[in-house]
Amino acid sequence: MTETTGGRRSGGRAARQAARAISNAVSVPYITRALKPFEVLSEEHLALIEENADTVLEQVGIEFRDTPEALELFRNAGADIQGERVRFPRGLARSIVQASAPASFTQVARNPAHTVEIGGPNTVLVPAYGSPFVRDLDNGRRYGTIEDFRNFVKLAYMTPFLHHSGGTVCEPVDVPVNKRHYDMVYAHMRYSDKAFMGSVTHPSRAEDTVAMARILFGADFLDANTVIVSLVNANSPMVWDSTMLGAAKAYAEANQGVLITPFILAGAMSPATVVGTATQTLAEALAGMAYCQLVRPGAPVIFGSFASSMSMQSGAPTFGTPEPALMLYVMAALARRVGVPFRSGGALTASKIADAQAAYESANTMQPTMLGGVNFALHTAGWLEGGLAMGYEKFILDVDQAAAWHSLAKGVDMSPNGQALDALLTNEPGVHFLGHPHTLENFESAFWRSSNADNNSFEQWDLDGAQDANVRANATWKKMLAEYVPPPIDEAVDAELREFIERKKASFPDSNA
Amino acid sequence: MTETTGGRRSGGRAARQAARAISNAVSVPYITRALKPFEVLSEEHLALIEENADTVLEQVGIEFRDTPEALELFRNAGADIQGERVRFPRGLARSIVQASAPASFTQVARNPAHTVEIGGPNTVLVPAYGSPFVRDLDNGRRYGTIEDFRNFVKLAYMTPFLHHSGGTVCEPVDVPVNKRHYDMVYAHMRYSDKAFMGSVTHPSRAEDTVAMARILFGADFLDANTVIVSLVNANSPMVWDSTMLGAAKAYAEANQGVLITPFILAGAMSPATVVGTATQTLAEALAGMAYCQLVRPGAPVIFGSFASSMSMQSGAPTFGTPEPALMLYVMAALARRVGVPFRSGGALTASKIADAQAAYESANTMQPTMLGGVNFALHTAGWLEGGLAMGYEKFILDVDQAAAWHSLAKGVDMSPNGQALDALLTNEPGVHFLGHPHTLENFESAFWRSSNADNNSFEQWDLDGAQDANVRANATWKKMLAEYVPPPIDEAVDAELREFIERKKASFPDSNA
Repeated sequence: MTETTGGRRSGGRAARQAARAISNAVSVPYITRALKPFEVLSEEHLALIEENADTVLEQVGIEFRDTPEALELFRNAGADIQGERVRFPRGLARSIVQASAPASFTQVARNPAHTVEIGGPNTVLVPAYGSPFVRDLDNGRRYGTIEDFRNFVKLAYMTPFLHHSGGTVCEPVDVPVNKRHYDMVYAHMRYSDKAFMGSVTHPSRAEDTVAMARILFGADFLDANTVIVSLVNANSPMVWDSTMLGAAKAYAEANQGVLITPFILAGAMSPATVVGTATQTLAEALAGMAYCQLVRPGAPVIFGSFASSMSMQSGAPTFGTPEPALMLYVMAALARRVGVPFRSGGALTASKIADAQAAYESANTMQPTMLGGVNFALHTAGWLEGGLAMGYEKFILDVDQAAAWHSLAKGVDMSPNGQALDALLTNEPGVHFLGHPHTLENFESAFWRSSNADNNSFEQWDLDGAQDANVRANATWKKMLAEYVPPPIDEAVDAELREFIERKKASFPDSNA
Repeated sequence: MTETTGGRRSGGRAARQAARAISNAVSVPYITRALKPFEVLSEEHLALIEENADTVLEQVGIEFRDTPEALELFRNAGADIQGERVRFPRGLARSIVQASAPASFTQVARNPAHTVEIGGPNTVLVPAYGSPFVRDLDNGRRYGTIEDFRNFVKLAYMTPFLHHSGGTVCEPVDVPVNKRHYDMVYAHMRYSDKAFMGSVTHPSRAEDTVAMARILFGADFLDANTVIVSLVNANSPMVWDSTMLGAAKAYAEANQGVLITPFILAGAMSPATVVGTATQTLAEALAGMAYCQLVRPGAPVIFGSFASSMSMQSGAPTFGTPEPALMLYVMAALARRVGVPFRSGGALTASKIADAQAAYESANTMQPTMLGGVNFALHTAGWLEGGLAMGYEKFILDVDQAAAWHSLAKGVDMSPNGQALDALLTNEPGVHFLGHPHTLENFESAFWRSSNADNNSFEQWDLDGAQDANVRANATWKKMLAEYVPPPIDEAVDAELREFIERKKASFPDSNA
């Protein structure tokens, strides 16, 4: 099975762009970074932040709300429990995590070619997550539907530059809240063959996700392999609530991956400084990951950090600004010191449309995402409006940037061909290299090619309709969806999945809570 | 003298944005980076590139065309001269540079508060350079005029986030080619009080620039101080021509700074690889800098690198792509090893307009510019269309990004206030930090504020006219120009400058060559 659609090639510029957007020329299941991470703090300063986090865990502690079993697990592990407050003796949370959490783990996709390794020098690029709205050039901003959801699953499936199908690529608001997880999980399973994320909005929905994965992969396979990774957010500051803990428990018990992510608007949910936010994030994440390890030692966890700055005027979150970039670099280093995979970043922006603001802010977050060494890069494509909208054109523009990172992360080619010394020694001053054998041998692969950028002359661009990047991206996603061919699936498995969903949906009334 | 205009504050959103754009809250003469540079190669690999560059300088050498005095200088320094070809014994070019070129130097501005230090951990942000066209939302793309030139000088003067007035901020095409340098240099001297760049299009124009600087600063002051920095490009591959060498000589003899920049479209003017291009750039730059040191030992030089990738289809240069980013990181490390200041990068893009393509590409170049440790960042604001157009709105958007880099480059605040441990220890789980004394003390300065980004809700943004970033930037530059107040200048000096220009212009006929 390949990622190319095998469809006919129709003519024109949009066709060429779409063909490049779905090219399998750089078809790798994930990025393995050759560049070492960029460090913004010394080891001594990182150790000081760890000291401070230990002080906070020891003196303030974390509340685990409405989850007596968590309190019991932590009591048995040696923590001090007062009511729902869990205070950790210095080093306890870290030692629980380090005792059993894997440094890296494999998330198996139903197409083995799309199985991803999460951790170490690897980066998995994942679509944006969680927006109730969608936006495209033709219809503007509107509530997401299950059709939009499927469209984004299809687009993520078709591009080789996203390695994962993601989770709630948009909220399918036309499906009842208490049943939409069935349709979402099924869409990932049926319209893609990449790895995906499960439902976390209720423990029973997490269990449904696991049940559906058992059908798709087989129950025995599931117990021995991680096939789901799910997003569990802290209720910062210093609280884990029962919904999130229940979902985390359901997945950890089944040996499935959990992203433990303090989601912090700095200044509101944490102190208004980089290091204060990092300290709190570390404390909250260590406590959450420790919980998963106590539920099932060895269950895969990903240390997550989502931290934004905020606008002084409105209290609105702001993105692509300096402070969250520094937080990301610091958190990535702290996660490496814990020894677990790290999630952060993405193509984040507060802009309502895919304009220069959106691109500047997105690039300013994707740079630390990649240079900082993020392992699981949720929100790599589509994010607009602080996460409230998923943009079709933004998705295409972000995927193009994701493609570029495949080249940049390879680092510098120091091979004899890369050094090109022979070429330099056989070329006379003033003579161009265009016809040199070394150039001809390297030309096709020498430079990364954007599938969206217009590099033509002004005159040619003007003749072509003076399109901005959004107009070109609009043509690309339409062409991709038109050419989409679903991956093959075992018909009996598909029937069993559909039967499961039908039966479940019929067993309780619709509700939007 | 301050950078604020002291003008009245009129109301409205544009006024607030313009006020922020010209705020003196972050008024520093240049950025001093607290972050250590990002390194993409080991010391061993950098040494290998230096070895290869020495081999190229030894075996192929560099042509110094139509400049017998250069050949004579190099012959006396121990190089092998055959015709116009200069071959350097291994290590010679480097040793000439290292013997006398300053590691860092001061470029004095006529307002001492705007004097810049070029080298070391410092970064000087400079407007874009050299475009024949300008673009704004109202009038689209058109040839630049002297009025446009003055406008960009005024805008660069008004923002605290550009540290330099630049040079050919656009070509004033309405002034004859052989006389426009007078008007350009005068505009920098009269409409700004920041440091500026001189003319290089003919040795006599370089001499005119020096003569005007003698009037402005005094002849004695000029000989002892660097007040001009000028851009001298190699004719790659491996050629320096007489125009550039003549300009370099005029400035170096007067102890003025010279940017020695191989300007390379990789694959055409160098091999189509990162390291091949880096090797050639190093060889060409060492030879050019060595020439300046032989002309006047100790004359300030800046090691420049401008390297773009190219489109396979059209041969057009492409920007914001992975390969030039890697080249920039490599060249910055090589320049540090030579021990001279480094120039590269900027907000580069091939886009014709300030759309998402432009912003993505610009950010992808500004990130390595700042993280790589560039000292003189030409093209930080305004660049469009591969340098063919200077954009008014793009300028404002780029300046906003330049502002952000002032915060990011400060690195992480590890002070007790930055650690915020007391805040973390005095805040209960589940209680927001908005009202905490630590937050209230830090809120005003906690987070960088964009002067352009819209972080409002979708509904508010829609009510405000659903503006994209360009529309907001359009209002900002108009407001800034409306509020511009020229810096004071000694009237006798001004009269002498104008008399000099009038006399010179009258002494030879207009020509567009």
